[in-house]
Amino acid sequence: MSSETSVTVKLGILGCASIAEKIVRAVLLLPEIRLVALGSRSLAKAQEFAKRNGLPADAKVYGSYDEVLDDTSVDAVYIPLPTGLHVHWVLKAAEKKKHVLLEKPPAHTMEEMELMTSALEKQGLQFMDGTMFVHHPRSAEMHRILHNPQLFGTIREISGIFNTNMESTFGPTWSQSNVRGQAHLDGLGSLGDLGWYCVRGILWAFDFEMPYKVIAHPGTRFNDAGVIISCGATLEWKDGRTATFRASFLTDMVMRLMVMGSRAVLDIGDFVIPVKEDVATFQFNQGSAWVDRSTGWTRNTHVHEVKTELPQEALMLREFAQLVKGIITGTGKPNPIWPSVSKKTQAILNIVKESIEHDCSPITLS
Amino acid sequence: MSSETSVTVKLGILGCASIAEKIVRAVLLLPEIRLVALGSRSLAKAQEFAKRNGLPADAKVYGSYDEVLDDTSVDAVYIPLPTGLHVHWVLKAAEKKKHVLLEKPPAHTMEEMELMTSALEKQGLQFMDGTMFVHHPRSAEMHRILHNPQLFGTIREISGIFNTNMESTFGPTWSQSNVRGQAHLDGLGSLGDLGWYCVRGILWAFDFEMPYKVIAHPGTRFNDAGVIISCGATLEWKDGRTATFRASFLTDMVMRLMVMGSRAVLDIGDFVIPVKEDVATFQFNQGSAWVDRSTGWTRNTHVHEVKTELPQEALMLREFAQLVKGIITGTGKPNPIWPSVSKKTQAILNIVKESIEHDCSPITLS
Repeated sequence: MSSETSVTVKLGILGCASIAEKIVRAVLLLPEIRLVALGSRSLAKAQEFAKRNGLPADAKVYGSYDEVLDDTSVDAVYIPLPTGLHVHWVLKAAEKKKHVLLEKPPAHTMEEMELMTSALEKQGLQFMDGTMFVHHPRSAEMHRILHNPQLFGTIREISGIFNTNMESTFGPTWSQSNVRGQAHLDGLGSLGDLGWYCVRGILWAFDFEMPYKVIAHPGTRFNDAGVIISCGATLEWKDGRTATFRASFLTDMVMRLMVMGSRAVLDIGDFVIPVKEDVATFQFNQGSAWVDRSTGWTRNTHVHEVKTELPQEALMLREFAQLVKGIITGTGKPNPIWPSVSKKTQAILNIVKESIEHDCSPITLS
Repeated sequence: MSSETSVTVKLGILGCASIAEKIVRAVLLLPEIRLVALGSRSLAKAQEFAKRNGLPADAKVYGSYDEVLDDTSVDAVYIPLPTGLHVHWVLKAAEKKKHVLLEKPPAHTMEEMELMTSALEKQGLQFMDGTMFVHHPRSAEMHRILHNPQLFGTIREISGIFNTNMESTFGPTWSQSNVRGQAHLDGLGSLGDLGWYCVRGILWAFDFEMPYKVIAHPGTRFNDAGVIISCGATLEWKDGRTATFRASFLTDMVMRLMVMGSRAVLDIGDFVIPVKEDVATFQFNQGSAWVDRSTGWTRNTHVHEVKTELPQEALMLREFAQLVKGIITGTGKPNPIWPSVSKKTQAILNIVKESIEHDCSPITLS
């Protein structure tokens, strides 16, 4: 009986990961989505999380993930579990006809990735991964500049670096205590956790055209469990464009994406999570020139500020909820863009890993 | 009869390259060095250059390079000729007992490099390459920060990018008209012209410790003459440190060096030639941290300004002149640091080229 506009998407959450706190806060900002259930392996932990994060009084709190999936009032689930648990719970979610918003990296392998997205697709369910930055209005504004040849010329090269010092954040034993150091939980390590964003940013700038060759950099570092804690790779496209990225758990924060064109350079120092929530900046440098006798140089530097009323994770949730609402009310279908960009990003990560495992051999994509 | 302090080093210049104009201006700023001779293949061109650049009235202007080398009043020569001519003229300079300040890249191969430096060494002559930025007081200040473990922690990774759009500077036919596009003149292309600085910056930050493995990135681009116009590589050290650089003639200016440590990140946006001549800046970011629920992040950003009364090329000339003066007056010997750092930089370039020629195979240094 409800019209499309009055439908509220009812969300369940599997797990009490710290990232879930950020998502809960975002859901509470949105009228179009309602948090109706939360499950944890421990009921006490779920109750404590619900209280601390101000879950609505009528939200159900469960001592298992299965109960969330069995709850027929739940339309969609947000799954912030470690990567190693994704296949199991996404396949169950598909079986229970829940749309899925899945934390990144989605999978350890492309086989897992395909299993999950095809299971959801068969059931007519929406899949989206939890990459937030693409939903920030800054990304749309940067995209307009990048794809304006008058301003930017031809994009020739991209450099992405996302490093963060895990020891500073989580203490000296992070590699044992944090899921990101454990092979069965987050088996792609810094490649999956940080490199994911670099690869997504690179593909985003190139409108998701896939490279044809990938080579890992030498010097990959592993922790005692064999998990990657520092790595990098260079990608090549058929027309000669290239992109290089680095992803490390070992240095102070670097979160830079530079897109280098024949006429200009786009430079973002906080591309994954803007330093400030309400206003994000990027720099656009254009038309540099040497001064007389090359004793200096000039460029036109434009610093763009992009305001947003909602944080990027809320914008992601809103996009997800709108798609789910359309499917529920029969006015829309699952948008194939989201599983597609997710699969492309995952594919690059797994090819980089393959190159790492083969002494940095170049891998040509079929 | 002259005491050391009153000795003025007498400099000759071979060729009228545009970079020579910058050097002439710098020489004229320095009391300890005097420009006494200039040679060009064309006397008319040399005379025109001398007039335009305000050469001292008593400076001799020759219609050949040989006459400069035969001039017994000349102590030292600055050679800004294209790389392909270096061996010939440096060997002649050594024969004529002239100290040599040589534009970079010094050579096409390590064999050429060794020929030149050993010829000068045998004659007790100073060699220095024309890399200016290491002589800027900013470099000394950055070095202090980098090697202060309390501030910086451990240096883990470096990223260097030096791109400049040759077409914007020299027009659409630059590849034919400019020496940098011609195999016999500047055979290392953007690797030698721009990558040189990235490699020097990387080695400088690592106190000239050599890497043990080098791998070129895929996607090297060549012009019609087979000269590299865009390339990159990653270097690995035995203890797991890495450095990645990119060098391209195809994009708007990027001149960035980022040194990433466990506690801090050094970021220089104009590391080769400061945007401004009298004051250069660099940024030092330290102790970044996520804010609550990772909805943003903080860091301590320090922007350092370093003033200099003399431009970096004058500081380079002064260093060179002081060494030459010491040798002339018998109070000093050739400083082996300068040929050493030059050979190390050259060695890396040639190994990157070797990797490029072998489909990006990793090359292990002996």
